Amino acid sequence: MKFHTEYLWFNTEKRREYIRITEQIKSILSASGIKEGMMLVSAMHITAAIYVNDNERGIIQDLDNMLEQLAPFGPDYLHHRTGEDNGDAHLKSLLLHQQVILPITGGQLDLGPWQEVFYAEFDGRRRKRVIVKIMGE
Amino acid sequence: MKFHTEYLWFNTEKRREYIRITEQIKSILSASGIKEGMMLVSAMHITAAIYVNDNERGIIQDLDNMLEQLAPFGPDYLHHRTGEDNGDAHLKSLLLHQQVILPITGGQLDLGPWQEVFYAEFDGRRRKRVIVKIMGE
Amino acid sequence: MKFHTEYLWFNTEKRREYIRITEQIKSILSASGIKEGMMLVSAMHITAAIYVNDNERGIIQDLDNMLEQLAPFGPDYLHHRTGEDNGDAHLKSLLLHQQVILPITGGQLDLGPWQEVFYAEFDGRRRKRVIVKIMGE
Repeated sequence: MKFHTEYLWFNTEKRREYIRITEQIKSILSASGIKEGMMLVSAMHITAAIYVNDNERGIIQDLDNMLEQLAPFGPDYLHHRTGEDNGDAHLKSLLLHQQVILPITGGQLDLGPWQEVFYAEFDGRRRKRVIVKIMGE
Repeated sequence: MKFHTEYLWFNTEKRREYIRITEQIKSILSASGIKEGMMLVSAMHITAAIYVNDNERGIIQDLDNMLEQLAPFGPDYLHHRTGEDNGDAHLKSLLLHQQVILPITGGQLDLGPWQEVFYAEFDGRRRKRVIVKIMGE
Repeated sequence: MKFHTEYLWFNTEKRREYIRITEQIKSILSASGIKEGMMLVSAMHITAAIYVNDNERGIIQDLDNMLEQLAPFGPDYLHHRTGEDNGDAHLKSLLLHQQVILPITGGQLDLGPWQEVFYAEFDGRRRKRVIVKIMGE
């Protein structure tokens, strides 16, 4: 039974960004030497998310548009009584979910043909972290 | 430590369908011989989802209605500049999440009394795949 | 390879409540003796959820407001033809997702500085259960 844990750091230029991390996590898998198991990829901050979908510019903007419609950036959150301005970012993170579990088979991430892994930042311009933890053999 | 991996194939008649797969994954668990552990059930396509909820016709339609309200089928997605017409299906998949992890205790799926596992297809009429991966002892 | 499984019970006073369970699950981790691995925390009922976010009164109410907007409590669900009145609770549970996986590193939950774990009840005033299952070494 092996475990392998690494942390990815992000510090985006914009408030909201969607960053493909498939290659980075494949490198982590290679370094681990694990051939069968599961990889958890999970945001360690509460205004970010990890998701799997298409690496296509249009759908990424469509996702951003939908999240902005469901939880718009703006002043009207009770959370802002604390002095924060990122209430929308908490809610966007919860709608998209902060994590995925990726299956590992034969030493590879066992993903479908169009599945790419993304870090979704909703309150950027500060250092934030993602845990990548692999468990297997 | 044991691993057991199978793939389920779907090819729905309708664009959107919700298919109960609880019995299929219980059979996979039996075949694996694994008594304690976790089972990942994860869509390998980016326009489908796996979820756990009630096997009741009304709530399934209510879910479809909600998703259709939050991410309606229609022409107005930037993703469609690629020639696709399934922008809504990507977004519905992201809202519902593409995967679940099911606990295994005493050789059984450790589910509550009303928990049933479903494959949610949002862009059907083509062959699509789901991975079922079990890890345990 | 070790497994440790416990069940948490809830019986809320109100229909909807958001209950912090971080300390309870840390105690379960300590009792398990597991130092590296993963912990699944998953609602066993289909009208509840588990999520990770901020322990701040304002954002909790903001979350409740958003869910109530996306899937409002009320009479207009097909599910209610069965005699139930909790269609909204099923949909809120699906939007928030019923489970999280928490990484365990060096005998601790490997969470970010603001990450707290919550049980979200959407149809309370009855006994309901959450499974906490740890797998590791």
